[in-house]
Amino acid sequence: MKKRSKLLLSSAAALLFVGISNAYADEALPKVPPEPADNPTTAAKVELGKQLFFDPRLSIDGTVSCNSCHNVMSSGTDNRATSVGVDGQRGGRSAPTVWNAAFLTAQFWDGRAATLEDQAKGPPLNPIEMGMPSEKAVEERLSSIPGYVEQFKAVFGEEDAVTYDNMAKAIAAFERTLITHDSPYDLYVQGNKQAMSEQALRGKEVFEKSGCNSCHSGANFAGPTELPTGQGFYQHFPTYDSKHVKIYHLTEDKGRYEVTKAKDDMNKWRVPSLRNVALTAPYFHNGSVATLDEAVRVMAKTQLDKELSDQQVADTVVFLESLTGERPEISMPRLPDTTGSSLVGTVK
Amino acid sequence: MKKRSKLLLSSAAALLFVGISNAYADEALPKVPPEPADNPTTAAKVELGKQLFFDPRLSIDGTVSCNSCHNVMSSGTDNRATSVGVDGQRGGRSAPTVWNAAFLTAQFWDGRAATLEDQAKGPPLNPIEMGMPSEKAVEERLSSIPGYVEQFKAVFGEEDAVTYDNMAKAIAAFERTLITHDSPYDLYVQGNKQAMSEQALRGKEVFEKSGCNSCHSGANFAGPTELPTGQGFYQHFPTYDSKHVKIYHLTEDKGRYEVTKAKDDMNKWRVPSLRNVALTAPYFHNGSVATLDEAVRVMAKTQLDKELSDQQVADTVVFLESLTGERPEISMPRLPDTTGSSLVGTVK
Repeated sequence: MKKRSKLLLSSAAALLFVGISNAYADEALPKVPPEPADNPTTAAKVELGKQLFFDPRLSIDGTVSCNSCHNVMSSGTDNRATSVGVDGQRGGRSAPTVWNAAFLTAQFWDGRAATLEDQAKGPPLNPIEMGMPSEKAVEERLSSIPGYVEQFKAVFGEEDAVTYDNMAKAIAAFERTLITHDSPYDLYVQGNKQAMSEQALRGKEVFEKSGCNSCHSGANFAGPTELPTGQGFYQHFPTYDSKHVKIYHLTEDKGRYEVTKAKDDMNKWRVPSLRNVALTAPYFHNGSVATLDEAVRVMAKTQLDKELSDQQVADTVVFLESLTGERPEISMPRLPDTTGSSLVGTVK
Repeated sequence: MKKRSKLLLSSAAALLFVGISNAYADEALPKVPPEPADNPTTAAKVELGKQLFFDPRLSIDGTVSCNSCHNVMSSGTDNRATSVGVDGQRGGRSAPTVWNAAFLTAQFWDGRAATLEDQAKGPPLNPIEMGMPSEKAVEERLSSIPGYVEQFKAVFGEEDAVTYDNMAKAIAAFERTLITHDSPYDLYVQGNKQAMSEQALRGKEVFEKSGCNSCHSGANFAGPTELPTGQGFYQHFPTYDSKHVKIYHLTEDKGRYEVTKAKDDMNKWRVPSLRNVALTAPYFHNGSVATLDEAVRVMAKTQLDKELSDQQVADTVVFLESLTGERPEISMPRLPDTTGSSLVGTVK
């Protein structure tokens, strides 16, 4: 019998995995994500949100838009270990994909935002991301763009509609359209048994028998989707000690502990979705792992204390590739103009 | 009689202005720009070029695409004085708009590229723009993206189609679709006499009587469009000394002289198009002038030694606004994926 690695969390928590695992069942991604009662999706709001999502004027110097780090022309990420914000500043964590983020019950790696609306309010004011000095500064800038003023009024039906909250609502409404359907896995689950290859099905078995689906469960492979809004699904990462922990600096960032300062949250993370994971390299909160096969090896070892064979790893990777869905067509927005002067032209 | 400012160029060159001025006639922008015999436009090439234009993987660290500085969701520029490249580095000149660049007979502010194809080969290798180390490095990166390999082969019909030259050809083909038509001015010239306001027509008169059209002539308001490819239309800027020269640092950058080292090219610049100029603030090669009205004042004084009244300036601005055309709808590209690893993920 091989030597077990040092368990980094309590056995009670480990047992919880098994309980969740039993509840696992194949599920296609729902067609439409949930939306909050106070922010119903409308076509005009989605269009406004799309413009805002692509608008670099949400950053102090006009160089960074939401799409800079969450590129919906590709993976919904920037495929960098960590992102680059204004003035060439580097972020501390890897940008999660925006695809299907609408199905998560908490946002950010550490779950510190309850909703897409809350999340969207973070980056513009983050000094190393978009660097705007205040909500008011964002509102003033948007208010000086006639095309935005008009749309905010029409969409929100208020006289003073250009507010930071409404900006976030519009962006969130756009993000709720960023859903990937009809992955080979979804087609398979819906009855097309040819949609997944034999190797993908072998990988699915490795994934399930190893216990990956203890945490990466549910239609979004990110844990239960029916949790109350704002209640994230968290796990310790790493759970078991191994050489990977040091090599990939897995414990340097304290994760959710940085938000709550609760001892039990040390190195806890919101379980990320595995949908489209084949597109979102590099991997983990710090982007330290370059390839999907190595990410599978690291997860098996640090979370399940299992050494997978090369064949098992290869099969699992092919299974994970079957979670890549069809990304919807998006028409390119036309950003509302200013004429005769620039809002970012004289910003240093 | 008011005191004439010091003339900064020879009177022979000044007289040339008058000759050109006489040849001026109203012209709508042609529907299609010229294309080189060795790079015919095809739909598949335009689609490939669009993907490349939006692909940040043309930059060393995956943060800068052509569109970062030539944003076709808006003005075709970044509306900054100077652009930001990789690692937060600042460029030395203001990014010109890509809209209608296809009508220019030489590219870059100093005309150092003869064609759009030549121009497109500059920024990827510029260390302060996209920072790729060599043409070969770009080719290797593109060759590792299966979706590009396939498209390059189909578009160029060659076995080893993923070349730096072909990349530039595809981007240039896309750029030849970036034409703005049906500005109020174009509609007016084509017979719709209601298309321009009275104020715009007054501004047109100021523009013509002052001699702005000595240089900003032709359908593209950038000088003769029938010059041979590569032969730019250059003028000294500034021509007359004035307070503006110092305030806006107009002579610090030597312009075309930096390319040719010919004394006569000192502070010479390719005459930029005025189409969509209302959208492209801030102004001039160094982006030093924040507003269009001030740009009009500066040009009148430094190029024509004229002090325009506030009314004349306002009228001219309204005329220039009538040069803002309709930008065509562009469908959003889907950038070809890599799976399981990132090409920029581990780049520092």
